[in-house]
Amino acid sequence: MGGYQYPATEIKFCLEHIAKLKRLEAQFPNYSDDLLEPILSEAGKFAEQCVSPTNRQGDLDPPKMVDRCVQETATFKPVYDALQEAAWTTLSAPEEFGGQALPRALEVAFNEGVQSANLSFSLCPLLTQGAVDAIETHASDELKSTYLPNMISGKWTGTMNLTEPSAGSDLAAIKTKAEREGDHYRIYGQKIFITWGDHQMSENIIHLVLARLPDAPEGVKGISLFLVPKYLLDENGQPGRRNDVFPISLEHKLGIHGSPTCVMQFGESEGALGYLVGQENNGLMAMFTMMNNARQSVGLQGLAVAEAAYQMALEYAQDRKQGNVRGVEGKVAIAEHGDVRRMLWQMASMLSAMRALMYTASVEGDLAKIDKSHLVRNELYTPIVKGWLTELALEITSTSVQVFGGMGFIEETGVAQLYRDARILPIYEGTNGIQALDLVGRKLKADKGAGMAALIEEISTDLASFAQLDEHVQALSLQVKLLQSSTELMLDQQVNVSEAAFDYMMQSGYVLGGWLLLKGAQDAAADEAWLAKTNFYFDHILLRANTAAESIKGFKSNQSIPNVALLNK
Amino acid sequence: MGGYQYPATEIKFCLEHIAKLKRLEAQFPNYSDDLLEPILSEAGKFAEQCVSPTNRQGDLDPPKMVDRCVQETATFKPVYDALQEAAWTTLSAPEEFGGQALPRALEVAFNEGVQSANLSFSLCPLLTQGAVDAIETHASDELKSTYLPNMISGKWTGTMNLTEPSAGSDLAAIKTKAEREGDHYRIYGQKIFITWGDHQMSENIIHLVLARLPDAPEGVKGISLFLVPKYLLDENGQPGRRNDVFPISLEHKLGIHGSPTCVMQFGESEGALGYLVGQENNGLMAMFTMMNNARQSVGLQGLAVAEAAYQMALEYAQDRKQGNVRGVEGKVAIAEHGDVRRMLWQMASMLSAMRALMYTASVEGDLAKIDKSHLVRNELYTPIVKGWLTELALEITSTSVQVFGGMGFIEETGVAQLYRDARILPIYEGTNGIQALDLVGRKLKADKGAGMAALIEEISTDLASFAQLDEHVQALSLQVKLLQSSTELMLDQQVNVSEAAFDYMMQSGYVLGGWLLLKGAQDAAADEAWLAKTNFYFDHILLRANTAAESIKGFKSNQSIPNVALLNK
Repeated sequence: MGGYQYPATEIKFCLEHIAKLKRLEAQFPNYSDDLLEPILSEAGKFAEQCVSPTNRQGDLDPPKMVDRCVQETATFKPVYDALQEAAWTTLSAPEEFGGQALPRALEVAFNEGVQSANLSFSLCPLLTQGAVDAIETHASDELKSTYLPNMISGKWTGTMNLTEPSAGSDLAAIKTKAEREGDHYRIYGQKIFITWGDHQMSENIIHLVLARLPDAPEGVKGISLFLVPKYLLDENGQPGRRNDVFPISLEHKLGIHGSPTCVMQFGESEGALGYLVGQENNGLMAMFTMMNNARQSVGLQGLAVAEAAYQMALEYAQDRKQGNVRGVEGKVAIAEHGDVRRMLWQMASMLSAMRALMYTASVEGDLAKIDKSHLVRNELYTPIVKGWLTELALEITSTSVQVFGGMGFIEETGVAQLYRDARILPIYEGTNGIQALDLVGRKLKADKGAGMAALIEEISTDLASFAQLDEHVQALSLQVKLLQSSTELMLDQQVNVSEAAFDYMMQSGYVLGGWLLLKGAQDAAADEAWLAKTNFYFDHILLRANTAAESIKGFKSNQSIPNVALLNK
Repeated sequence: MGGYQYPATEIKFCLEHIAKLKRLEAQFPNYSDDLLEPILSEAGKFAEQCVSPTNRQGDLDPPKMVDRCVQETATFKPVYDALQEAAWTTLSAPEEFGGQALPRALEVAFNEGVQSANLSFSLCPLLTQGAVDAIETHASDELKSTYLPNMISGKWTGTMNLTEPSAGSDLAAIKTKAEREGDHYRIYGQKIFITWGDHQMSENIIHLVLARLPDAPEGVKGISLFLVPKYLLDENGQPGRRNDVFPISLEHKLGIHGSPTCVMQFGESEGALGYLVGQENNGLMAMFTMMNNARQSVGLQGLAVAEAAYQMALEYAQDRKQGNVRGVEGKVAIAEHGDVRRMLWQMASMLSAMRALMYTASVEGDLAKIDKSHLVRNELYTPIVKGWLTELALEITSTSVQVFGGMGFIEETGVAQLYRDARILPIYEGTNGIQALDLVGRKLKADKGAGMAALIEEISTDLASFAQLDEHVQALSLQVKLLQSSTELMLDQQVNVSEAAFDYMMQSGYVLGGWLLLKGAQDAAADEAWLAKTNFYFDHILLRANTAAESIKGFKSNQSIPNVALLNK
């Protein structure tokens, strides 16, 4: 097998011709368009040659608890060292802390490769990035200067500690306690599902932990965020004494075996020493900073894992000879069979739509830092990127297994691992149900649909300017109208919003995917494959937006579906 | 957790009120309607109490190669013994060989429970049943009387040996050789993916093997079927000398870990001694006998695994408290959240549609033995039952994982196993792509669409007789028309048939599901839950038939999608 190939050409096309990356030159003095190609080229080499060969090893030899430490998969540390040495962790970080101050969109492009090549490994630097964001935005200058340089350089890594056994989607239920002690706090409690909660790849691990002060108000307004280092720093700012925070067990999971998912115990004896990030009782805001990026990044993971699976299927389908096709002599590659061809084009066209949305959203994320309307747009995109991309990732990894037939079910083939790995994506960083509620309950409601109206307006303006491909323009115009109608139903609560939210998120995704494919197809730089994928999408995929729109109408009134108690036997 | 509960009430409703099981009384003298309830009751107990507790064990302690034998999961043999002692293996078999001569539909009802409770285990008696069918239909009287009684009693099990490394979907490529030697043959070759190819639960294993004689014509017309026992019989008909057939390795699979998937070597030394089943070079016909039943049974496996996963999700959603709902004091069960409720009703309504189709097809299968029109109908149903039910099984097992959130990704929860187990179903016994081609290339073509026309006619007649639920009648009438249009497109080859076949199979499934749900809803015996599921299906699922119909139209001419070479980077 040829192995994973970083899709540099398509990423470049999406960034330049759909997301219009050039707009960022003024905002990022360190960035100019001529940097794009060399960065993508190096990112590709790193993902293909350094990261990708370790993916199966992580699945077969998952991390283990040794004494009170997690020992990660053996081949991972050299990859982490290479990541750090090449300064990939510094791409978008601010210069004052040792970063390169480049657009986040470039970091997304780099991350796509690493995530395709080894999703489990990628989560470690990714969570560090999230922790860096939260510290940079909310922590005191002292905490920033103490922790950020080493986290940005990759010398230290970071984690997010939210979930507890009874507080998953519902963070209001958090029970972990924090007690004031001079200029710091002592943390006591247990956190579960902590990704890369412990490992030996970095000199220190900086845990960001949600906890509750003794006098905190109930619910989400009583949650504070604390920085809890694995090793407390000595007077030189170097890791010194071990803090009272330990991994106590690892989960046995369906996928991402290479990523240690820890149960973390804070304060078994003297209490874990922690520092407040931001204001007391204001931890949720800081957590949302981390989560907004993290959510788009999970969407990216969907794209990335699906791309890796699709590439395997595409290669296999062209190699594997089986059966005959009329008019062709001898056995043919299964890619010649109509149904296999259908599956491959279906995956390819979905992937391009997903990628177009991903990079469009990522450039909006950069623009959001200086412009309110882009901020609104980026926040509107976030749940769609997370939800729609990860739902399609399940479908694409499953279809990839299907292309392999019986061989797809054999673990040695490798595609089954991707099918298993992908299954976490609609769940973590807020289930897709939560994303859908975020879209309709928070994003739509916040501005009474103004942000969505602006988006629909932009699509309509684009459509008016598209000269060719009349049939597609017509089809998309209809879909845009349907999306508008669905939006009104949601805003006016003419349907049961909580039941209909998921369909609305999916409808939005399919419409946005169609718009951005068409936008690409209108560009002179679009290649033949892009045009063919656009055609396939419009002929076979976009229709699903219809189905979602109709389904939404079916959630007629408040609680239109009966209580599930009726289903008990 | 309460564990799996056999859905006896719904199975009974489907058999009595939708599939009209009563029609079989005349044909099966041993059967009368008052047998149904006790059989279902005992089947339920067996599945729930005896089989279900072993499912996780099979996943954790899969079979191993010990010397040249396969040692199955330890807890399985007692279950097999119980199955045999209760004579469950004899239900539908002919009386002359020790069977009870009851309808196959009852066996399907029994099998649903075993498959829900432990899919891996269920495959062993299931493949025996397939082998019994092939021997009964095609073998000589001598072979029948020698082998059938012990296979039907469950003393001996059976296997199907079709696939070779280069002959998967394409059986024409089979290379295993058979040489004549007096009244028997010697078999030489390797078979892969042989389910329960070896184990220690039965005294003998009867392999049915496809092989090619030295002077056989090329392709599928040169394949013969042989009966190859693991132990050759002595003069008393008892297992004696070991035959030259051995398992040489086991596959490491994504799911159904408890089911040993063997590479089988025939004829390492003196050649495996085998007996011809049917005529030389006519093996494919015999294999199709096995496969037609086996295919419907894989559809049943889809229903069964999905039911098991759904039950887990339904129970968890009612137990797990998380978050608040407006107007309700305190934390609520997640089943109270709109999106979770949506997922549960979606699974429930799909499952009832699937079950209605499954039992309708199974009664048709019984009627097919005495009536040509029912034979045509049963053969038309087969690819839809296999393809549509197993595609939905992937969706339902995935949705079940989603209901569990993060816990669904943890293997100890158990639902992840069902997600993995289900993934084989769209692949084995002919991939769903093959099913779709069977539907349009063989079943539709064979009678120029007459069988499908008769089915559409029956649905239309039913619709005309349905008084209530006007909205649904109208919706289904439209869908029936669309199915008719799609059928014409396929028959006249106005679309690329091989590309569009999959959508056509799915469209057929969704329409049939709607029809049978509505048929049930019209019956006075339908309970409130059935009516609510019918409503949900019509409001949110049936629409997918539309999408499929539109997608079919998109496969415009011959090879409307370009060659996948265009997708190579």
